[in-house]
Amino acid sequence: MYGTVIHGPRDIRFTELPDPAITKPTDAIIRLAATCICGSDLWPYRGINEVEAPHAIGHEYCGVVEAVGKDVTTVKPGEFVIGSFFASDGTCPVCKVGYPSSCQHRELVGDAQAQYVRVPMADGTLVATPEMPDNEMVPSLLALSDVMGTGWFGAVAADVGPGSTVAVVGDGAVGLSGVLAAHVLGAERIIIMSRNSARQAVAKEFGATDIITERGDEGIARVKAMTNGIGADATIEAVGTKESMAQAMGVTRPGGHIGVVGMPHDVSLSGEEIFFSQVFIHGGPAPVRQYLPGLIDLVWSNKINPGKVFDYELPLSEVAEGYKAMDERRAIKTLLHP
Amino acid sequence: MYGTVIHGPRDIRFTELPDPAITKPTDAIIRLAATCICGSDLWPYRGINEVEAPHAIGHEYCGVVEAVGKDVTTVKPGEFVIGSFFASDGTCPVCKVGYPSSCQHRELVGDAQAQYVRVPMADGTLVATPEMPDNEMVPSLLALSDVMGTGWFGAVAADVGPGSTVAVVGDGAVGLSGVLAAHVLGAERIIIMSRNSARQAVAKEFGATDIITERGDEGIARVKAMTNGIGADATIEAVGTKESMAQAMGVTRPGGHIGVVGMPHDVSLSGEEIFFSQVFIHGGPAPVRQYLPGLIDLVWSNKINPGKVFDYELPLSEVAEGYKAMDERRAIKTLLHP
Repeated sequence: MYGTVIHGPRDIRFTELPDPAITKPTDAIIRLAATCICGSDLWPYRGINEVEAPHAIGHEYCGVVEAVGKDVTTVKPGEFVIGSFFASDGTCPVCKVGYPSSCQHRELVGDAQAQYVRVPMADGTLVATPEMPDNEMVPSLLALSDVMGTGWFGAVAADVGPGSTVAVVGDGAVGLSGVLAAHVLGAERIIIMSRNSARQAVAKEFGATDIITERGDEGIARVKAMTNGIGADATIEAVGTKESMAQAMGVTRPGGHIGVVGMPHDVSLSGEEIFFSQVFIHGGPAPVRQYLPGLIDLVWSNKINPGKVFDYELPLSEVAEGYKAMDERRAIKTLLHP
Repeated sequence: MYGTVIHGPRDIRFTELPDPAITKPTDAIIRLAATCICGSDLWPYRGINEVEAPHAIGHEYCGVVEAVGKDVTTVKPGEFVIGSFFASDGTCPVCKVGYPSSCQHRELVGDAQAQYVRVPMADGTLVATPEMPDNEMVPSLLALSDVMGTGWFGAVAADVGPGSTVAVVGDGAVGLSGVLAAHVLGAERIIIMSRNSARQAVAKEFGATDIITERGDEGIARVKAMTNGIGADATIEAVGTKESMAQAMGVTRPGGHIGVVGMPHDVSLSGEEIFFSQVFIHGGPAPVRQYLPGLIDLVWSNKINPGKVFDYELPLSEVAEGYKAMDERRAIKTLLHP
């Protein structure tokens, strides 16, 4: 089969690779209907995370089950399935309290920008759709594999509920998905910080009520001016830099909640900041598996269309251009057709 | 009147000071029935917080209203009142969302180890008891002014509820009060980390089900062994050091909550620690004023007796010995009779 290998900064190659095979009785092999590039894939692409040796890349996937190991009982060949970037057993104490992304036996599905992928612990990881979806629904189902599941977690971690005033820091695909999640969860006001007109348009379509172009102290002042002088009830931090975390801390009111779903890079918070801000902080790799059944229902019934974050589609063979477009912010998120 | 002035590390003096007077129409003057020494008073006492100039000290108080300014309407001379260490207006947007300790106009009541104290914004700060209390109830009412209110916030911030498994890091008066709060809130299991037999005894009386003497990695392993291998649902961090925060992070399960009520000193958390631990973190100066009415009811009806944290009582004139006893861990908490 063909798949994607990152060799180093800005060196993405479409390469012939061995076909994946069932290695454990709990594995499944998926023929991908679609895959895509994540904002987090740009960290190694940009050389911010070191690439020590060439490796396969990609962690968002959906498609048709090709084969399963003998212990797999919940999905079968021919079914269309979606899974999380972290495979999880679904049975350990951490899975049972709702955090499959911190499963005691989790494994990253890290080679999904490919034609086929092996998914470990298929019963704990994959969820089948009710039937074979139409092609036009595939982008929205693919989005559930990470970006929409992560945006959803951002909103849930930020305790968004009916009537909430929400701030979203980050206008990438996760931030936009956070807007959509906040809207579905009943937020009354959704303020997103964005300077990019394409992203602003998606944000509005997803339910943003206000767009703020200011950043830093000015951005904080703008949000506070709109929120009774004290800040948002709920903030989704969907970037992961020092600046974005400071923005999130600054726009959240005492007793407000920050959902941290941007993977942090070189971020730290002092005890005093945590203490005196009086915000709630919660985040991490999204427990996507937990949300898949509910989110599949929402997509299946056309209540949400998170696939709109994909504004660029390419054949998998042009994956390198997909990275380039996202790096240059020409694309919000690139969908790849294997 | 006489009060307490800290001049520098280990230099506490019982001193004649000017009588406080009404300076604003919203002030009240209280004749203290009792005051006490806080764990946080030991930071400057030990020289960890610098004492730039001699200043009055003490922030826990209850007593009888002596005089009120002309705008005060909710308390009147002759009533027995309790207030928080942070005076709050009770009307700003931050107070209204339940965080009076971050009131936009908050003022520290920082000179309460004295015979009299001036309390600003009396209507937003003080709560009167139903009647004049018996002397034996005074320690428990005094405890509400900070330590029990703070322990209560620690448990609430850690989301303690019926059935919770709770870990308490810190066996000082706040940690012990956190045990009591967790017990009242319905926790099923309350594990406190303590090596001090006097504190262990109070912890048991307050509802601790398990006492752990191990610390560091061993302490974490012990708690995990008792909690399905994953850690507590709720942890009260009642110390404020690097070590105690690391302990709290280590003993809390993914999706568990840490209530941070030990004022942090030289603590920081990396973005990665926050992210990958998947814990909820919330804390700060306790919004004591919010809890006072409910906690007064609990004390008044003899459902709780938080005054048991006071294991040493002295006349105010011996305040220096009170500090010394706490510094040397001879006393959990010293009550002072003005």
